[in-house]
Amino acid sequence: MQDSPEIQRLTKLLAQFPGLGPRSAKRMILHMLSHKENLMTPLASAIEKAARAIVTCETCGNLDITSPCSICNDERRDSSAICVVQSVADIWALERTRAYSGKYHVLGGLLSALDGIRPSDLSIGPLTERAHKDGVEEIIIALSATVDGQSTAHYIQTQLKDAEGLSITKLAHGVPIGGGLDYLDDGTLSLALKSRR
Amino acid sequence: MQDSPEIQRLTKLLAQFPGLGPRSAKRMILHMLSHKENLMTPLASAIEKAARAIVTCETCGNLDITSPCSICNDERRDSSAICVVQSVADIWALERTRAYSGKYHVLGGLLSALDGIRPSDLSIGPLTERAHKDGVEEIIIALSATVDGQSTAHYIQTQLKDAEGLSITKLAHGVPIGGGLDYLDDGTLSLALKSRR
Repeated sequence: MQDSPEIQRLTKLLAQFPGLGPRSAKRMILHMLSHKENLMTPLASAIEKAARAIVTCETCGNLDITSPCSICNDERRDSSAICVVQSVADIWALERTRAYSGKYHVLGGLLSALDGIRPSDLSIGPLTERAHKDGVEEIIIALSATVDGQSTAHYIQTQLKDAEGLSITKLAHGVPIGGGLDYLDDGTLSLALKSRR
Repeated sequence: MQDSPEIQRLTKLLAQFPGLGPRSAKRMILHMLSHKENLMTPLASAIEKAARAIVTCETCGNLDITSPCSICNDERRDSSAICVVQSVADIWALERTRAYSGKYHVLGGLLSALDGIRPSDLSIGPLTERAHKDGVEEIIIALSATVDGQSTAHYIQTQLKDAEGLSITKLAHGVPIGGGLDYLDDGTLSLALKSRR
């Protein structure tokens, strides 16, 4: 039955997910097949419904059931700050902290010479447009502390340098809470030392 | 959007799979949503098609597009041997070895006093029925080498002891190929020593 076209197609699709391969895909398929009524059929319809219901916010790139999304529409949120993130997963991570009440902007990736990802592939044009609008006072660049993340941050800074009265900030680097100093890399440690307060 | 009923429902279903939790389920959902056309919609229909196409073989308990399954129907396979396994995944593992050309019987679990799984919950009745049929000469018990696996094997042996001319065998225990002796547990090592040849 492994060779049946239905299973082969399903295995191929599931193996495309990050962290899954053909073996774990087959394991998922077996689990589904032994719970057909209460898992497999509901799952197919849940995926189909979610695919129809969820849209990309045309303002910030977030995923939601409405466009503009619930964050863009929320008038209690501070619209003077825009937090620039790589992906929607980063919005979820930041929202979990409950430490930020501004708006977001999803780039959809990072600049990468190796992978051939250029500024036109990312949502940088719409970001500069939003940044130049009245009332926007701060752009918080919340990209990962990798080479690609930092070069993307630098590119965004150069694109926004002519905007008057706009402050551009970045997430602080330092010792993670609960992290021991001896396990930390030297770069982070020296940065944490420099930005001591 | 995390709170939308569509995403909550999908997260709940995906988190039921072995090895997945709410976080990895959300990661899968984000991946789907950013590949709606070429992954999400095809996946929903592939799951639905597989759910309709795949049935449980009424003879051996295997999953296939026909019942009796392609293994039960295959006349080139030796029908004098029945290999007893816990689940369909074990059939797949044994078929990958290409070392066995007999038939199978899926128990659907293991006897477990702790989990309250009794003989009537497993496909043991149909197994004894098949074992008593003409032409069946060997029952190979291929259950895992755990307490539950071994007590299930023992129970099957007692159920089949009155069948004349039927030999009941078990998988050999020993050193796995490529495994070092110093990493092996004492029980396996002493068994491997006892069954040396």
